[in-house]
Amino acid sequence: VVGIDPVLERLPAALQPDEPTLAGAASALETFGHEVLGAVAGIVPAVKINSAFFEVLHEAGVGAYYRLIAAAHEHGLLVIGDVKRGDIGSTARLYARGHLATPRFTDAGDERMPDAVTVAGYLGESAVRAFAEAAREAGRGLYVLVRPSDPGADVIHEFCPDRRLYEHMADLVHRWGSAANLIGECGLSCVGAVVAPKDPASTAALRARLPHTPWLVPGYGAQGAGAESCRPCFRADGGGAVVNASRSVIYAYEQVSYQQRCGDDWVACIRAAAQDFAADIAPLGPTAGAAATTG
Amino acid sequence: VVGIDPVLERLPAALQPDEPTLAGAASALETFGHEVLGAVAGIVPAVKINSAFFEVLHEAGVGAYYRLIAAAHEHGLLVIGDVKRGDIGSTARLYARGHLATPRFTDAGDERMPDAVTVAGYLGESAVRAFAEAAREAGRGLYVLVRPSDPGADVIHEFCPDRRLYEHMADLVHRWGSAANLIGECGLSCVGAVVAPKDPASTAALRARLPHTPWLVPGYGAQGAGAESCRPCFRADGGGAVVNASRSVIYAYEQVSYQQRCGDDWVACIRAAAQDFAADIAPLGPTAGAAATTG
Repeated sequence: VVGIDPVLERLPAALQPDEPTLAGAASALETFGHEVLGAVAGIVPAVKINSAFFEVLHEAGVGAYYRLIAAAHEHGLLVIGDVKRGDIGSTARLYARGHLATPRFTDAGDERMPDAVTVAGYLGESAVRAFAEAAREAGRGLYVLVRPSDPGADVIHEFCPDRRLYEHMADLVHRWGSAANLIGECGLSCVGAVVAPKDPASTAALRARLPHTPWLVPGYGAQGAGAESCRPCFRADGGGAVVNASRSVIYAYEQVSYQQRCGDDWVACIRAAAQDFAADIAPLGPTAGAAATTG
Repeated sequence: VVGIDPVLERLPAALQPDEPTLAGAASALETFGHEVLGAVAGIVPAVKINSAFFEVLHEAGVGAYYRLIAAAHEHGLLVIGDVKRGDIGSTARLYARGHLATPRFTDAGDERMPDAVTVAGYLGESAVRAFAEAAREAGRGLYVLVRPSDPGADVIHEFCPDRRLYEHMADLVHRWGSAANLIGECGLSCVGAVVAPKDPASTAALRARLPHTPWLVPGYGAQGAGAESCRPCFRADGGGAVVNASRSVIYAYEQVSYQQRCGDDWVACIRAAAQDFAADIAPLGPTAGAAATTG
């Protein structure tokens, strides 16, 4: 998965807007996003679009977010909407409707909805249930935050002397995702987990707690994790996980090594970085034959 | 605080859109929101606008959200943006920029930014720090989720045998908000807490843990809490807390008692419910004289 987290300051000079307006900045981000989609399609199966980087541009950015999802689908890419919403009761249902369910409006089609979203489950089951129901109905999925990559989260996750909060979250995600109507033919649930790779032993222990949970794995690349540290995130058959790289791919044109390979063709730099990323991760996954049979 | 959580299905018949489009629905919500603002201004000091109810209408709803904030300011109301964002590192900074900081664009002014936002701190200090810095720079505030009103949250908050997660969150919020440059002349920090009233003893214990933390108190009205159960949320001087009512006020026109008082004037029903709410809560707060001296 290539993560699309664009900030205006790091876009190529050619894309910088003339005027510092919300609309101009959103248009620049959208143009950049379209180029990234074209560069990585066919190399990776999915993109993750980080809502925060579009929300900073208010309604203009949010419009670009949804249009980029639709464009990614035209490229044959799956889309993870990285929204990390989490709330209770009726508010949770509204977030699920806005970010995952099939729209009920004549001017908004399924093409602008992501195939999965990230969800914060810290307010309990009702926060997750609304998204799980929307996922089941629409044939989509969700990834619940289980173990963040930021060491700053330890102050929360390690407050209890006896057990880690992320272990408890893993057990809850396993339970919430175990209903028979949430598990597909491939044996994986539509309720997934976001799990950052840390030391191999603790990652393997989490994998054992989550036998039918698909993982979204952050932290590769600019955040420091290498392919080898992602290996315990996969099941024994090489399935059950996707690895995300954001800045190391979309800003490849800032790196001297890619500039030397691709000159000032910044889209070619992104494509080359996506190829390197995919080649680095591919040995962890199933073989092509196994992938065809395990889905 | 009156909470603005509008769903299309419950709006007065006169506001229902002709066409089921995102733009039409967002326009109906915005019109309704403007009427609510006019009805409650001068009766309550602030409104809380729940982002989820606008995000369900994608960019059209998000535009309405920001325009309603600006309109509330024209009415002299303070605004709490109920966005419950929480993320780490650079993503947290982007959320803080989009939802609390002064915009850096020529077509977006301070008037469309809320005076405070709700924040999820479950990913640790970096999730909160970005908002606290934005609050300090802009003279605004944040309310970190400490104790949710939903009993479904117990599965998270009571997982540790020795202590409650919400007690731990309270201690963290106290620590995060204690820096000298975050505490104002009134003795309260710009880092607040969302604390639902439950049994009086546990609420009073949380109040003692948070001596200089302003509280946003959910759960009044449609969610079941009465004024008396909110009393332990206030400090001894009657300051330090605001109580929110949403559905019991904005949908007052659905209640027979208000229909009998105000006929089919749905705006008058909302105004009457806001007056009843304010009269019910006022005895908990400071006297008018004390309010003037404690801010």
